Amino acid sequence: MAAPLPLSAEDMLRVNGSRRFAAAMAAASPFASLADALLAARRIWLDEVDVNGWLEAFAAHPAIGTTSPSVSKWSKEEQSAALSTATDSTAQELAEWNARYREKFGFVFMICASGRTAAEVLAELKRRYTNRPIVELEAAAQEELKITELRLTKLFSLEPTVPSTTIE
Amino acid sequence: MAAPLPLSAEDMLRVNGSRRFAAAMAAASPFASLADALLAARRIWLDEVDVNGWLEAFAAHPAIGTTSPSVSKWSKEEQSAALSTATDSTAQELAEWNARYREKFGFVFMICASGRTAAEVLAELKRRYTNRPIVELEAAAQEELKITELRLTKLFSLEPTVPSTTIE
Repeated sequence: MAAPLPLSAEDMLRVNGSRRFAAAMAAASPFASLADALLAARRIWLDEVDVNGWLEAFAAHPAIGTTSPSVSKWSKEEQSAALSTATDSTAQELAEWNARYREKFGFVFMICASGRTAAEVLAELKRRYTNRPIVELEAAAQEELKITELRLTKLFSLEPTVPSTTIE
Repeated sequence: MAAPLPLSAEDMLRVNGSRRFAAAMAAASPFASLADALLAARRIWLDEVDVNGWLEAFAAHPAIGTTSPSVSKWSKEEQSAALSTATDSTAQELAEWNARYREKFGFVFMICASGRTAAEVLAELKRRYTNRPIVELEAAAQEELKITELRLTKLFSLEPTVPSTTIE
């Protein structure tokens, strides 16, 4: 049997931009399995990270549909369906609605875009725009959790493992 | 019949420390009655002010039980029952739990303290401390709304009125 390595707070910040989340996950690691890591992530994100931590995590994401060199590889992968299906007019409309959303709610529109087309993302943005701010905050946090789970899963599929008994 | 004066954003900031709230209330004024003002306040606070505005309003309050020259007259009135019933040990415990609360949630413990004793406030703080952050954020916002309503009512009872037809 192989046991995963401890996770560093730096690794965790690439998964979720909240420093409180990253520190708590690193402290709780190593995890015996991906399932254990996912359970810990859910508990820490929903029960321990405060609203400032949620906003900090949201702020680590590019606006959906943004293509700039600073966008992370994971963000690009998650948005690949949306980016490949965006016509110029959809991209323009997305940019406008993103700005309107940020003006109303004070943070970037969060969506786990994996596998969703640009038109689907835009429809969801317009639907959620009508939410009350507190309802939308929780919806955004749930999307952030989905992204966190997706990235943790990727991290575990990449993570080198060490034998559970090591030779000095 | 007398109609209330328009409310200034400055007046409204003494009622609720969110600049978005204050600007929207000032823009919606004058109100024909206190009831109209209370309805507008509820709508603006719950439907329009974003989470950053909520945090801004919370930050305008002293920690419950705090006595310093900078605490506003309204805050002192609202806390008069709590302050007059606080023994040294209750005051000490309140200060400790306030600090613990702020560490967990990232904002000051919000409670409409009007008429509540120090022991009641402390019991409520301990109870709410167990909440998930998103649940507590909404509870705090509801308390802020109660304080806002109380202060608006005081403001209306003080507000000078002008005749609905004025003589130039």
